Amino acid sequence: MTHISISIIGTGNMGQALADLAGKGGNTVELIGSSGVDKAVTSDIVVLAVPYPAVGQVIAQRGAQLAGKVVVDITNPLNFETFDSVTVPADSSAAAELPDSRAVKAFNTNFAGTLTTGTVGGQPTTVLLAGDDADTKALLAGVIMAAGLRAVNAGGLKRAREPAALGFLQLTLAAGEKTSWTGGFTLAQ
Amino acid sequence: MTHISISIIGTGNMGQALADLAGKGGNTVELIGSSGVDKAVTSDIVVLAVPYPAVGQVIAQRGAQLAGKVVVDITNPLNFETFDSVTVPADSSAAAELPDSRAVKAFNTNFAGTLTTGTVGGQPTTVLLAGDDADTKALLAGVIMAAGLRAVNAGGLKRAREPAALGFLQLTLAAGEKTSWTGGFTLAQ
Repeated sequence: MTHISISIIGTGNMGQALADLAGKGGNTVELIGSSGVDKAVTSDIVVLAVPYPAVGQVIAQRGAQLAGKVVVDITNPLNFETFDSVTVPADSSAAAELPDSRAVKAFNTNFAGTLTTGTVGGQPTTVLLAGDDADTKALLAGVIMAAGLRAVNAGGLKRAREPAALGFLQLTLAAGEKTSWTGGFTLAQ
Repeated sequence: MTHISISIIGTGNMGQALADLAGKGGNTVELIGSSGVDKAVTSDIVVLAVPYPAVGQVIAQRGAQLAGKVVVDITNPLNFETFDSVTVPADSSAAAELPDSRAVKAFNTNFAGTLTTGTVGGQPTTVLLAGDDADTKALLAGVIMAAGLRAVNAGGLKRAREPAALGFLQLTLAAGEKTSWTGGFTLAQ
């Protein structure tokens, strides 16, 4: 497998879980927190592991650096004050707003714990990928599968809204103790 | 358990699977096809097991009969010509349009095969219920659990759009052979 470099912006539980996951395949991983805001990202893949409201800020700060890179948006459009979903244009996601980048929506239906363990309810954790560029999705799928998880192509960026809805539903179910933070939805084959 | 009568309108694979499921708990079940359009429904629970575009027609035909009953909407707002999701008002579903009824959105994230077998990927099949009336959801949950499946309260009707998105995503994944028609998403605990 080609050696891939991955920058993860955001050091929360998702950022840490993704750094762990990406490292399993022998890739070069850097985890960038708020103190690294002045450090330019040069990796093949840049993961925006920040809450949805912060995506715009990261894009504003790093727009030129992100041009041409694979940019992975893991966010769900969630209002963290009301814990309600935020209405976004039906055919877009935060990643779709990125200029001149190969955007993929991914990991937004996965809890951090299931990325680390690689299993949900006895099945391999499934990562849904939505994006318009097939090569980009294949590159990211390779990183995911090298860590022992499943990667499933959920379609183009137009399809990003359905995984986002699934991710939001899963958050509300976990918050309501209808599922656990190490559980959630899994895709049977 | 209280004896419950259930009318299922629609004799497709979902209607038949739901009739089978509802009968397992010893309830009285009637399955009504297009030849039964003149037969009034008098059951406690009425399940609209018809495709989304037909819901409006059933409501127009049976509006008065449905008043006060538990009406279960299993549909996903899907355009069957383009196999694309249909934009509906964010906070509504077909069931929300029913006048004076206790509407529940349910079974729209379940494939017929998994209602019949009661399992998905080694877990009990989970039915997500969205509705505004707690007693109504509890009644329907009882029918589901009596058949050995899991019922999970996904919130009010406002939450019906997220299961709808999950259901649509699942259909596209099955159509694309990313999961099977006896598989799909399951909720781990």
